[in-house]
Amino acid sequence: MNRPLIIPRTLKGFRDHLPAPAMAREALLETARRVYRSYGFSPIDTPALEYTEVLLGKGGDESDKQLFRFTDQGGRDVALRFDLTVPFARFAAQHINDLAVPFKRYHLAPVWRGENTHRGRYREFIQCDFDTIGTDSNAADIETLLVIHDLVSAIGFERFRIQVNNRLVLNGLLEILGLIDRSSAVLRALDKLHKIGAEGVAAELAERAGASPEQSDRVLEFARLTGSPESVLTTLEGWLKGNATGELGIARLRELFTVAQHAGIPAERLALDVSIARGLDYYTGTIYETFLLDDPKIGSICSGGRYDNLAELFTSQKLPGVGASLGLDRLLAAMESFGMISASATPAPVLVVHFDSQHMPEYIRIGRTLRAAGIATEVFPDAKGVGKQLKYADRKGFALALIAGETEFAQGVWQLKDLRAGTQTTLPEADLAQAIHAALQQAPAKPAG
Amino acid sequence: MNRPLIIPRTLKGFRDHLPAPAMAREALLETARRVYRSYGFSPIDTPALEYTEVLLGKGGDESDKQLFRFTDQGGRDVALRFDLTVPFARFAAQHINDLAVPFKRYHLAPVWRGENTHRGRYREFIQCDFDTIGTDSNAADIETLLVIHDLVSAIGFERFRIQVNNRLVLNGLLEILGLIDRSSAVLRALDKLHKIGAEGVAAELAERAGASPEQSDRVLEFARLTGSPESVLTTLEGWLKGNATGELGIARLRELFTVAQHAGIPAERLALDVSIARGLDYYTGTIYETFLLDDPKIGSICSGGRYDNLAELFTSQKLPGVGASLGLDRLLAAMESFGMISASATPAPVLVVHFDSQHMPEYIRIGRTLRAAGIATEVFPDAKGVGKQLKYADRKGFALALIAGETEFAQGVWQLKDLRAGTQTTLPEADLAQAIHAALQQAPAKPAG
Repeated sequence: MNRPLIIPRTLKGFRDHLPAPAMAREALLETARRVYRSYGFSPIDTPALEYTEVLLGKGGDESDKQLFRFTDQGGRDVALRFDLTVPFARFAAQHINDLAVPFKRYHLAPVWRGENTHRGRYREFIQCDFDTIGTDSNAADIETLLVIHDLVSAIGFERFRIQVNNRLVLNGLLEILGLIDRSSAVLRALDKLHKIGAEGVAAELAERAGASPEQSDRVLEFARLTGSPESVLTTLEGWLKGNATGELGIARLRELFTVAQHAGIPAERLALDVSIARGLDYYTGTIYETFLLDDPKIGSICSGGRYDNLAELFTSQKLPGVGASLGLDRLLAAMESFGMISASATPAPVLVVHFDSQHMPEYIRIGRTLRAAGIATEVFPDAKGVGKQLKYADRKGFALALIAGETEFAQGVWQLKDLRAGTQTTLPEADLAQAIHAALQQAPAKPAG
Repeated sequence: MNRPLIIPRTLKGFRDHLPAPAMAREALLETARRVYRSYGFSPIDTPALEYTEVLLGKGGDESDKQLFRFTDQGGRDVALRFDLTVPFARFAAQHINDLAVPFKRYHLAPVWRGENTHRGRYREFIQCDFDTIGTDSNAADIETLLVIHDLVSAIGFERFRIQVNNRLVLNGLLEILGLIDRSSAVLRALDKLHKIGAEGVAAELAERAGASPEQSDRVLEFARLTGSPESVLTTLEGWLKGNATGELGIARLRELFTVAQHAGIPAERLALDVSIARGLDYYTGTIYETFLLDDPKIGSICSGGRYDNLAELFTSQKLPGVGASLGLDRLLAAMESFGMISASATPAPVLVVHFDSQHMPEYIRIGRTLRAAGIATEVFPDAKGVGKQLKYADRKGFALALIAGETEFAQGVWQLKDLRAGTQTTLPEADLAQAIHAALQQAPAKPAG
């Protein structure tokens, strides 16, 4: 090789995943798959690249500008997907006749957005979506809530709250107030409540939605309703009496809270928040957001809602649905800050030290024997000094090391070194697997999943 | 929406993965992860997009032409990775100081190639690589063989053979014959042995490598050596006596076969094939190919080898290594033809029929109760006719259905319908989980993994 070395570097906004964080991410994805499957969601996959026309104009102008878009070798205008929802809409329209409805799918896959990279945003990240399409039934909305609950709980969190709303409730109020044709402007103003306060919102409601002071007061009074789901729903019942839209929203919310508790979801993990809207147009019914009580500032870690018509750009067949998406990067950041992620860079807890190259066949054999007993085991490949190998074990985060040389082989025993406690025991080979299982059960909690 | 519908379609050479095949692929990937981890390989990930200069010129001219390459929003010349080896080389060079060596990683991820799409080739497919870098030790070569064996076996195959070779053996012969400076031409000719026969190869050896008839005869005699590993190695020992390269190759092969058998790999699953080379330049030591005895025509399902220097284009640090890659698409095709893939499109074996909308809370509750007992359960969302719901269950491949209406709720029982056998039993709720576990253990073998 005479040419100069190429600088090894990743593109701006892209990143490598080294073993420890990659293992944490993999554990999270496995937990998501397990919980999704337990509810009957099946995996699907779609191509990373799509015809640009399939992706354009679905996520708004900002998404369009962020597309990684180019002309392929065959002259086609193509782009990398920027989310999993638009490809799912295309997929559903294309295959609906091969899929029985209701159709429940999950999709865990990377998406790409040419975003500004300040504020810790990445241009490639994994989305974890699940959706039930082809049904209007509130049972699907309730199960979506159960999935979110069981997922966040399976990841290892106990202190979290799922905040639920239903767009029909606000729509009912706006119908009564005669503001329903200006609902986007109202939502846009309400979204800023925490930022600009009630007076700011009132000013914007007057300016952008043409709301009278009285209308403004009613909208703000609505958005600031708090209390137990039942007390809020009772108040709303009074306000929205006789309005079919609002009453349907109230009925669906009441059924959702009742059935979720009947199914065993702790009441303190659920809340009704009539101020959440999650975007202006996409969601049409139930809406979900999930907050960690010990770190609410990272934002919602699992969000979603009900929509009227998934694939309207691709088919005249109406496909209502409901779903949500796990915020993988946010969750990983939170887990890291809570010390829930192991620093270990090895999926194997046991390292077989390569003590004497004459006995390499025994090291390889014991490794395979332990694996057959369900113990992930790495065999150090080189006969380097024991100190060097133990330093390697320490750096990677192995829990245990197995050592044997001439003396041990003559006696048919192994030295089992607990690298966390610094203790060492001599064991006949027949007792090894059991001793290792016992030692690993004492280990500090493994990363979630 | 007044604009015309967009045709829902995928790009040429790209495909959607529907539930049944997506589940089979996911099961294979999970098996691969489990086996790789059990040997201490950790996951890593790299970006789908790289600077084009990182990818160019590593896979040869054909790879370069197949690159999905474009200019990004920041004016950078970028491309989608066409394999996982070049990104791993870049990764290793960039992070080697943060990784203790030996470094063992696996990487399961999609790659993209703008290939001709005839002959069932796809432009997007998943690669499943594992490698050990930073060591020359034959222990790593032997463990690579063990991983291949345990992986193919864990997937569910029993009749397969791993064919092994070592490039040093042929190099030794070529050194003795004075042909080592023409080794590429010799390999290119030998690669065609099965296609053009001995005479064709002899002609090409004369023409392209300038080999004399005597040299040609020796090369062909070598390539056609067959027999047990020990008998072939004994023959080679005679031929290569005194040649250090050849003797090292023989010693490493002998140790590999001896230790693999010592570690419990059945002898009939291993073979020595001195004719395999796997590409002209990349591999420098041990080489692996794996064939299914009942379907050898699909080609090698798991291949790899040892290389001298992974990251020479990016760093002056020498990183020798050894690894292999599972051929996911070939394996899935073979498993499909052997009937090893379930046609079921649901990961949940149990469907709770939505018999009476008044009792929806009970259907939702029993679903969550069964999931807590480890039984994946789907609840049908709509109170459609039972016939319709059972047809849905049949189409998706559910094994069992749970039905209860007024009568059953009054008695505290459920009807458990075995959709495969057509039988139905009445059970108190307390006995349900156990009965379902028992019924599912009788089920036909699940897909591999």
